[in-house]
Amino acid sequence: MKKFNDKGITYPKGFKAAALNCGIKDAGLDLALVLSESPAAAAGVFTKNVCCAAPVILSKNHVNSEKVKAILVNSGNANAATGKQGYNDAAYCAEEIAFRLKCEPTEILIASTGIIGVPLPKEKIAGSLDKLVDNLSPENGESFSEAILTTDTFKKEFACEIQLENGKVRIGGVAKGSGMIMPDLATMLAFITTDAKIDRHFLCELLRDAVNKTFNRITVDSDTSTNDSVMILAGGASSVEINSGNKKRFLDGLLTICEELAKMIVKDGEGATKFVSVTAQGCQTESDADKIARSVANSPLVKTALYGGDPNWGRVIMAVGKAGVLFDQDKLDIYFNDILTVKSGVKSGESLEKIKSVFEQKEIEIKICINSGEANATVWTCDLSHKYVDINIDYN
Amino acid sequence: MKKFNDKGITYPKGFKAAALNCGIKDAGLDLALVLSESPAAAAGVFTKNVCCAAPVILSKNHVNSEKVKAILVNSGNANAATGKQGYNDAAYCAEEIAFRLKCEPTEILIASTGIIGVPLPKEKIAGSLDKLVDNLSPENGESFSEAILTTDTFKKEFACEIQLENGKVRIGGVAKGSGMIMPDLATMLAFITTDAKIDRHFLCELLRDAVNKTFNRITVDSDTSTNDSVMILAGGASSVEINSGNKKRFLDGLLTICEELAKMIVKDGEGATKFVSVTAQGCQTESDADKIARSVANSPLVKTALYGGDPNWGRVIMAVGKAGVLFDQDKLDIYFNDILTVKSGVKSGESLEKIKSVFEQKEIEIKICINSGEANATVWTCDLSHKYVDINIDYN
Repeated sequence: MKKFNDKGITYPKGFKAAALNCGIKDAGLDLALVLSESPAAAAGVFTKNVCCAAPVILSKNHVNSEKVKAILVNSGNANAATGKQGYNDAAYCAEEIAFRLKCEPTEILIASTGIIGVPLPKEKIAGSLDKLVDNLSPENGESFSEAILTTDTFKKEFACEIQLENGKVRIGGVAKGSGMIMPDLATMLAFITTDAKIDRHFLCELLRDAVNKTFNRITVDSDTSTNDSVMILAGGASSVEINSGNKKRFLDGLLTICEELAKMIVKDGEGATKFVSVTAQGCQTESDADKIARSVANSPLVKTALYGGDPNWGRVIMAVGKAGVLFDQDKLDIYFNDILTVKSGVKSGESLEKIKSVFEQKEIEIKICINSGEANATVWTCDLSHKYVDINIDYN
Repeated sequence: MKKFNDKGITYPKGFKAAALNCGIKDAGLDLALVLSESPAAAAGVFTKNVCCAAPVILSKNHVNSEKVKAILVNSGNANAATGKQGYNDAAYCAEEIAFRLKCEPTEILIASTGIIGVPLPKEKIAGSLDKLVDNLSPENGESFSEAILTTDTFKKEFACEIQLENGKVRIGGVAKGSGMIMPDLATMLAFITTDAKIDRHFLCELLRDAVNKTFNRITVDSDTSTNDSVMILAGGASSVEINSGNKKRFLDGLLTICEELAKMIVKDGEGATKFVSVTAQGCQTESDADKIARSVANSPLVKTALYGGDPNWGRVIMAVGKAGVLFDQDKLDIYFNDILTVKSGVKSGESLEKIKSVFEQKEIEIKICINSGEANATVWTCDLSHKYVDINIDYN
């Protein structure tokens, strides 16, 4: 597999993108479009938040269309908590862009990110669609990745090329999000394209699998957005068909894109100074392992200790114990970057100096072994810093 | 009911207390004892954390004794994550104090709070027990309340006197905790005494009820300590018996003590600048209401907005939606101090200025109505400030 951290959604054949400022934000790109030249098989995974945003409701319906032509994304306004008017506004945008692309509104997916509870300025969007369509080009993948950002501090693109027995296929992805959720001015969005030829039901299955192993394994602040969406378009321009025979290799590529983008989101987590991988091992079920890893990754006390460079095994023990999983604390082992720090439930003989040195690093791995089974799970997170508080106290 | 915010566990008749520095902390009181002159009926409610501390394991057993004579508490060391040695140390302390009080070790309850994962300096404790017993006096309730503190910034005492048909009874309580959990240097502990005469099984039932409605309704940072304990001793010195007839009035008094102490803990939450009450109303079940209230009270994004004085209804909507309770977002109403801010899922017509003024206050009530049933629940919490991060980044 060839990997590229400087290519994105227009790297696969048959995709064009465009981006511009339509006036939702005072400055900077805020409206973006990605188009599949041939109508594409599409799949999507959306937020589980009950108060999901209007564009999520619309895209959940449209993604079930036989084919999808394009995805229209705006930043600066989430079109969430906007009631029926919000849904009508999203539908209006879909109609307006569909008319210009000569397709049905149901062939358009919509995503929005930005402030919640404020009506979408749909006229600003509609007024810019002619120019947006004129700008469509395979060269504009990077502008797309820029236009969807909010509190993010860097663009998030990744692409790969996979050699299958029946030919080469490409997958490209772009994401935004400076945390699992920042419902005021942000959200996690990811858009993936591929020139593989693939049945949409099969695509949906592969996307769910990849999302569960990647985007669903990150947490910045344990909050869940009203707008989170991951969408994929498979245009088929490579003419290489994905089937059960070459599925594994294609999925490897898709997993790579999703994992790289998911990790970029955590590294760009609001106020993050450290990237932390938390693995729970030796559990009876994967669900138990997941609960333990998340309990540690979401604990404010563990996260502030990570920020402060404090090798606070006591807090990790506390977070493991409160996860809601029964286990024998006398069998609990905890490793920090492979240094055994807690053995059989109590501090190991390892020197404090050596343990402390792990916490001065930028990337930290916490491994928890409860030694009662074979299942494991990993969650990626970041620390909790003064800057997280700074970023989130302002009303905008 | 007469209420006193300057009286504590020695206000009920028949109780004595003592406190001193035994050398676990460099300075300040760190060892305390409360004694019931007549052996008391006892009850306790303890942490659900799987990695519970040695004194919790011991007290969970001893609280089932027919009678309890005293509670011995140390601060500065939690005796948690200390394995079998930790349990033996707690049992040793119980034996040493029981010998001096001429009772069985099973008539002693033990509680510890402080650093996790470090062996208990039991010799320091044992070496101070003679002096501690000599100091026992009804005048030393306040010293007891001081000796159990760690990161707390003030002492937490409350007492009341209740007139029942068959006589007067007194209840006194003391608590510590600067958050639901600070496993490194803190924990939530509460000790309650009463001179009422009451069967221990009945006492246990009343305590569970009171704790569920008070201490279990507070959250500072969503973490659950390895050491949390609430214990009550009923000595019977008033000779007034509690039965099903006067139960309600006694429970009212117990609830008052528990609620006042619980609110003091939140107000003294690590870095707290605001006291916030979150109520979910109109839910189908109490469990649904509890999930919604907790989801809002624990959301880092809601808590930072509260700190910043930002009336961010979008974040509250997000936190309600992620609670795991199904409801119709078009029926969601949200009030900030009785100002209807979100009506039927969208921003109400109320002026931003008026809504903002609520968030400048020190006490804020958030009321969420999902209008789909009759059940409700309240959770008390505080904001998330820079100081919370400051307090929790240091290794001690």
